[in-house]
Amino acid sequence: MQIDLNSDVGESFGSWTMGDDDAIMPSVSSANVACGFHAGDPSGIAATCRAAVAAGVSIGAHVGYRDLAGFGRRFLDCSPTELADDVLYQIGALEALAGAAGATVRYVKPHGALYNTIVHHEEHAQAVIDGIAAFGADLPVLLLPGSIALEKAEQAGLRGVAEAFADRGYTPEGTLVSRRDSGAVLHDEAEVAARMVRLATEGVVTAVDGSDVRVAAESICVHGDTPGAVSMAAAVRRALEDAGVTIASFA
Amino acid sequence: MQIDLNSDVGESFGSWTMGDDDAIMPSVSSANVACGFHAGDPSGIAATCRAAVAAGVSIGAHVGYRDLAGFGRRFLDCSPTELADDVLYQIGALEALAGAAGATVRYVKPHGALYNTIVHHEEHAQAVIDGIAAFGADLPVLLLPGSIALEKAEQAGLRGVAEAFADRGYTPEGTLVSRRDSGAVLHDEAEVAARMVRLATEGVVTAVDGSDVRVAAESICVHGDTPGAVSMAAAVRRALEDAGVTIASFA
Amino acid sequence: MQIDLNSDVGESFGSWTMGDDDAIMPSVSSANVACGFHAGDPSGIAATCRAAVAAGVSIGAHVGYRDLAGFGRRFLDCSPTELADDVLYQIGALEALAGAAGATVRYVKPHGALYNTIVHHEEHAQAVIDGIAAFGADLPVLLLPGSIALEKAEQAGLRGVAEAFADRGYTPEGTLVSRRDSGAVLHDEAEVAARMVRLATEGVVTAVDGSDVRVAAESICVHGDTPGAVSMAAAVRRALEDAGVTIASFA
Amino acid sequence: MQIDLNSDVGESFGSWTMGDDDAIMPSVSSANVACGFHAGDPSGIAATCRAAVAAGVSIGAHVGYRDLAGFGRRFLDCSPTELADDVLYQIGALEALAGAAGATVRYVKPHGALYNTIVHHEEHAQAVIDGIAAFGADLPVLLLPGSIALEKAEQAGLRGVAEAFADRGYTPEGTLVSRRDSGAVLHDEAEVAARMVRLATEGVVTAVDGSDVRVAAESICVHGDTPGAVSMAAAVRRALEDAGVTIASFA
Repeated sequence: MQIDLNSDVGESFGSWTMGDDDAIMPSVSSANVACGFHAGDPSGIAATCRAAVAAGVSIGAHVGYRDLAGFGRRFLDCSPTELADDVLYQIGALEALAGAAGATVRYVKPHGALYNTIVHHEEHAQAVIDGIAAFGADLPVLLLPGSIALEKAEQAGLRGVAEAFADRGYTPEGTLVSRRDSGAVLHDEAEVAARMVRLATEGVVTAVDGSDVRVAAESICVHGDTPGAVSMAAAVRRALEDAGVTIASFA
Repeated sequence: MQIDLNSDVGESFGSWTMGDDDAIMPSVSSANVACGFHAGDPSGIAATCRAAVAAGVSIGAHVGYRDLAGFGRRFLDCSPTELADDVLYQIGALEALAGAAGATVRYVKPHGALYNTIVHHEEHAQAVIDGIAAFGADLPVLLLPGSIALEKAEQAGLRGVAEAFADRGYTPEGTLVSRRDSGAVLHDEAEVAARMVRLATEGVVTAVDGSDVRVAAESICVHGDTPGAVSMAAAVRRALEDAGVTIASFA
Repeated sequence: MQIDLNSDVGESFGSWTMGDDDAIMPSVSSANVACGFHAGDPSGIAATCRAAVAAGVSIGAHVGYRDLAGFGRRFLDCSPTELADDVLYQIGALEALAGAAGATVRYVKPHGALYNTIVHHEEHAQAVIDGIAAFGADLPVLLLPGSIALEKAEQAGLRGVAEAFADRGYTPEGTLVSRRDSGAVLHDEAEVAARMVRLATEGVVTAVDGSDVRVAAESICVHGDTPGAVSMAAAVRRALEDAGVTIASFA
Repeated sequence: MQIDLNSDVGESFGSWTMGDDDAIMPSVSSANVACGFHAGDPSGIAATCRAAVAAGVSIGAHVGYRDLAGFGRRFLDCSPTELADDVLYQIGALEALAGAAGATVRYVKPHGALYNTIVHHEEHAQAVIDGIAAFGADLPVLLLPGSIALEKAEQAGLRGVAEAFADRGYTPEGTLVSRRDSGAVLHDEAEVAARMVRLATEGVVTAVDGSDVRVAAESICVHGDTPGAVSMAAAVRRALEDAGVTIASFA
């Protein structure tokens, strides 16, 4: 039994700090590193890459829309060509900084509005995959189960990797409970940890209606942007290891 | 006898156009491609890389200070660490876009205020070389003769390549005539072409005082930002070829 | 008989030039001046304001989405609060630069994707009007006939001003022919000028099917981004004046 | 006896937070509000303006070099024209947002590298004053005692206001102890508060060598970027009020 734990890092920018990369690194096996378009300045990214290498964590390119003011959380209706080239540019930039830290980019995870958009937006999904394919390293792509981008990845000969969210509720259909509904976000560390153990060992989570629902995921996304989030991530890792699950990168 | 001809390209940004990349490509052997910090958006850079590949021209990273509003022409007092990482980020981004065009970054030429600053600014010169060295591809660096960065490059085990400027006047000491003085910029195509033939074949140019001065340069920088500049670049190439000089990249 | 002629100006940015503000000024009565979010750096905006004042042309705030790389031509899904504050910020910045030129902002015209989006997007339409209303100067708003933003303007006690497009074809329903269809853009100077004379004197234009269609417009938008566009704008103005129509700002 | 207390606010940007505006407002009489060039997005600036109005605090324009990545802490060698227009643009943008909060910009304080540069850089000092003068509201300018910009302000008919720094050590000559030397920054709340009482009531502070040095200041700068800083600011205010000093804006 093995699963990956991933988290967003490198999201500081200049004098502004976001999250605590050093605190979250010990809990994860994959680091989604911002690439400068939604967050991340080169020196901050470089430091994050060094921290990932020191912790033995895989580096992934957390590519986003070009929107610092919106932190990549706002849909931007760019053309497919622009988007593919923006993705490629970001991967390349991160690859150079990762290289200086003795590593290499091992996967790609779209960020924020881009991640959500390509669940259903065919053109942007294709553009993201085109940008990744153009990089030429056959990088796997971390995505939401059911995302159209998973299909596009496979059509392009790239490996699509589905992820679960540790602190999110699931519907009986296996999708995330909308943030507008109750049960969308879970706050109890022990509950979250226990749910992720079932996910990793049985392939199921308890849905909001109490039923068991099958969720196929090779990776679990945890947060590191608050002390509480870091603590929860550590609890999830500990519970998984206690249950005999190996934490290892999918890449 | 052989010399390189280089020119700045890829300097458009979004809806704004700068220069005529397609027109200058046939005249040069090295293309200094903007990397997004002083100019160049990813799709424009990608198109420029394809044009360079189609023309058989070497791609160099034209790295600059992070200053779109100033086009990289304003000194920015960033820290050495910031500058080295900014340079590395830019090279990596361009490498990815060049790779998609079937090429690879072959050299680096600092742009604008950065180019001029590292003639004498030890810390920024060292930082630029550190950023290039960190990329790990032993890229040669195109610089002004006498630039402190040439020394720093050699100390780092990188090849420093000195360049001449086709349309600039030279002092009897072999330095460029200041733009504040008369004779700084030459406008006559035939005169410029003849001077560059002497440079390539004899290693000398006529200084503003009429004397001959020795200028050691492996590359000649020509401009492509106006129709007149494109025409002058073509004239320089033609004259060199007529004189039996091979035009080829130093990289 | 009186009508306004408006054009987009101030859209250069740093070293990049867009359009020819000095050439278009003599033809228009209203200058839509970029405010820095889709185009326009402060010194360029200041120069454009001085040119407008010298030509006796009214200054309007050409507010856009925050997207220099996309020139404001890409929809950006910002929140209504963000958008209203972005609009207010832009108007204020332009007001200061216009003030230094001896003028004041007299109206607002949304730019590009924002202009098109608020034809139908209720929340963004309301946000734009909220931002303008918050400025407190009861500025009129230049919009497409039928735009939801016209209603929102009137509900907020602001004057909505409808404009026609000199070089665009019209459907029999009085809307613009889609750029995907033939007849969308007209290129013949004399034809365009004659159409605008009919618009100003009779309130009608000839639709693509040959029928006359009523178009209520207090202003006509002309372009200034190419020599041909500048010449067409001059032809429109000349034809209107020859027909006895006074060219004057609506503001 | 009366003195002003000022602090930097509005320095968050998008999803990134800097400082705690709500916590520092009760302690100060003047709020230096970021204007978007070194920090501050329009909605964040608007919220800060509302907080200032609610607390009865004067709003000042904290203008900076155009450098988000460097937080305005890096010298940028822009031209005097660019700098003057950048300053004017920032004041105008803030004026609009302050206006929507029911206030108006009452003074200007240059930020970071700009503040430090214009202590000695004549051209940038003149440019900042030119930009402020062009705004036309005769805004006073908050500066370091001895700054060349104070002279330029007075020559332009603007009021220059000198400030002291609560937590900084002073040399026997009345200048700040360099951050490279010991005694540059003071950390003891009670000591800092007592020093500021002497400054406000006697016009002197104790220098690093133990001597008394005369410091003429109409305002005291306090920080709000850490819980400790907020607490120190509150202590300074309390001590001043206990000593019978009225805390009121100079503007």
